[in-house]
Amino acid sequence: MKFVEGGVTRAAGFEAAGVGAQIKYQGRDDMALVYSKVPCVAAGTFTTNVVKAAPVKWDQRIVKESETVQVVIVNSGIANACTGTEGYGYCEETAKAAAEVFQVEMEQVLIGSTGVIGMQLPMERIKKGITLLAEEKTDTLEAGNKAAKAIMTTDTRDKQVAVEVEIDGKKVTIGGMAKGSGMIHPNMCTMLAFITTDASISKEALQQALSEDVKDTYNMISVDGDTSTNDTVLLLANAMAGNEEIKIGTENYRIFAAALHAVNETLAKKMAGDGEGATALFEAKVIGAESKQQAQTLAKSIVCSNLTKTAIAGHDANWGRILCAMGYSGAQFDPEKVDLFFESKAGKIKIIENGTAVDYSEEEATKILSEEEVTVIADIKSGEAKGTAWGCDLTHGYIEINADYRS
Amino acid sequence: MKFVEGGVTRAAGFEAAGVGAQIKYQGRDDMALVYSKVPCVAAGTFTTNVVKAAPVKWDQRIVKESETVQVVIVNSGIANACTGTEGYGYCEETAKAAAEVFQVEMEQVLIGSTGVIGMQLPMERIKKGITLLAEEKTDTLEAGNKAAKAIMTTDTRDKQVAVEVEIDGKKVTIGGMAKGSGMIHPNMCTMLAFITTDASISKEALQQALSEDVKDTYNMISVDGDTSTNDTVLLLANAMAGNEEIKIGTENYRIFAAALHAVNETLAKKMAGDGEGATALFEAKVIGAESKQQAQTLAKSIVCSNLTKTAIAGHDANWGRILCAMGYSGAQFDPEKVDLFFESKAGKIKIIENGTAVDYSEEEATKILSEEEVTVIADIKSGEAKGTAWGCDLTHGYIEINADYRS
Repeated sequence: MKFVEGGVTRAAGFEAAGVGAQIKYQGRDDMALVYSKVPCVAAGTFTTNVVKAAPVKWDQRIVKESETVQVVIVNSGIANACTGTEGYGYCEETAKAAAEVFQVEMEQVLIGSTGVIGMQLPMERIKKGITLLAEEKTDTLEAGNKAAKAIMTTDTRDKQVAVEVEIDGKKVTIGGMAKGSGMIHPNMCTMLAFITTDASISKEALQQALSEDVKDTYNMISVDGDTSTNDTVLLLANAMAGNEEIKIGTENYRIFAAALHAVNETLAKKMAGDGEGATALFEAKVIGAESKQQAQTLAKSIVCSNLTKTAIAGHDANWGRILCAMGYSGAQFDPEKVDLFFESKAGKIKIIENGTAVDYSEEEATKILSEEEVTVIADIKSGEAKGTAWGCDLTHGYIEINADYRS
Repeated sequence: MKFVEGGVTRAAGFEAAGVGAQIKYQGRDDMALVYSKVPCVAAGTFTTNVVKAAPVKWDQRIVKESETVQVVIVNSGIANACTGTEGYGYCEETAKAAAEVFQVEMEQVLIGSTGVIGMQLPMERIKKGITLLAEEKTDTLEAGNKAAKAIMTTDTRDKQVAVEVEIDGKKVTIGGMAKGSGMIHPNMCTMLAFITTDASISKEALQQALSEDVKDTYNMISVDGDTSTNDTVLLLANAMAGNEEIKIGTENYRIFAAALHAVNETLAKKMAGDGEGATALFEAKVIGAESKQQAQTLAKSIVCSNLTKTAIAGHDANWGRILCAMGYSGAQFDPEKVDLFFESKAGKIKIIENGTAVDYSEEEATKILSEEEVTVIADIKSGEAKGTAWGCDLTHGYIEINADYRS
């Protein structure tokens, strides 16, 4: 497996575009397209929030019921959440308009939305945007870049990744783009990821590979603990690589799943590191656990704690807060067996051994914690399992983005 | 029942003191005493964190095993958490020193600690502090004030309350003090509450009254979602009111429990309103619920969300964030039945009806949200139960206290 340049247009047969449709913003692109020249099988995972946005409800139905899809239409101005039956109607209208323009069935159109909650979509602009997207679409990496930029809200940089892997003697590519950690007036953080592959793979295998991997990637990041109404990951496979169709339980499935994991983990880390106001990616690794679930519960509790996050912002080796966050995670462990380390490209330092502090250098710890990517490693010494979670530091920037803009 | 002036010394037979022992601070009191002239029955509730501070372990044993207690020694400089067997040994030593000075058994001494984690107690200073506390103690309201100030860390004001109620023809008083929302270099938030009553009540009834009520009061507040290693509520009853002993299931138990609830709720709200960096007490009431548990889960999710908290800081009627936080709380409900209101002493305004926004005045909403105590009321229209939670807004002050002080 190797990482290569590009995103959603890297795999064979995929096109993309990003255009300005003035859904909310002036002077920047706010609609994006992902298009496959041939029908794809699709897999999706969606927010678990009881309050689900209209496009989430639409996509859930399409991913479940449609044999193939071909078009994804995204806008980054309005979330179309808490918009009732009117809002769901606009999803149907969007799909219908796209079906006409791209000459597909409306049940082959998926929809992503992020942005303001509670507002209705301006359908004339959406329809004009769809026409523009159809005119602009190409299969170049540049088109992938434009789409990746058009789905951003308060993201400070676009998030793309692509990997190549050999399956069945054929080169198979998986590429993706995501937006996340964005907050937009007056609203909530939304993560969207769109992944394309030219692999030939059964729909069942595609969904299983995605559902399994989401637990270890997107579900292990947190910026502020707030699960959005719009979270969506979509994965499209168009079979243009020409490999024999991948089935569950085969060696080829394992290769595909590993490549998909590389894509998902990369996008998830990019989102965590670009969390609102963030100055650092904050990674927590729990090792020596009895089970992966125990390790993941502990790791996620560490990156979700406001206190550990403010300590990272202050480059402060505040190990008490980390033990505390592990302690209330809900997972059982013996605090008096815990060894704790901080690591970054500036070095690695042991802070705690068997639950109490060792004689470490605060100066060295601060140096390690001043990097843009910092890792805390907790060895709970009760088994062989491990788990990793990703978050970011909590800074004045977060407060500014979320409190100050409207008052 | 009526609210009266004072705190832990309001009930008959209780004395208190606060002294400077230089545990961590210079020039302010950092040790406190609560003392009963006669032996008391005691009840306690403690942190559920797997990582428990040494004094929590000590108090859990004493509350469970000792028939009576008489002395509570508190320091607000060092939390004595993550200090291993050495730290637990210092609890024993503290109890032994206090037993000698106050002429009681060491198993009649309870201990509270808050402050720096991972540091060991300076036992000579603790012992000197105990001697000073014994010299200073009196039963005046002023002594209660001094004790309430001596347990503060980053609290901006002391927290006391007292109520009087008639039981069995006798005046029964319950008074208490608490500290909370404090963070102290380099450490975690700790809440401590100490409540005294002159009621005659069985130990079993006392513990049940406390355990039941904690669920609706202290467990319904949140400043930053981080459950401390040191959280402790202690309730002492010395029977000096002269009423017939209160037993579980009686009318007198009901009266006592209601008065205790008033004390606990008042202290809990004072802690939430004095959260680190807070400019407002943020109350969430969920009504029309199927069960109290459903209502409390939803209410607590609202006050715990960083996004709702930053919106309150910005005086922003960001109802989408509130619905979102309800949606991921884990409780089931129908978002399309929710009515939402904001209320403060500046007025009350309806924002959402049946899950979508009504045509409200942003200006009026901002005015209501600019008060020092703001309430959101969510009517989920599926039953008669209700629940309330309390938090505070999330401001630059929180980041300053927790990130900036050490870097």
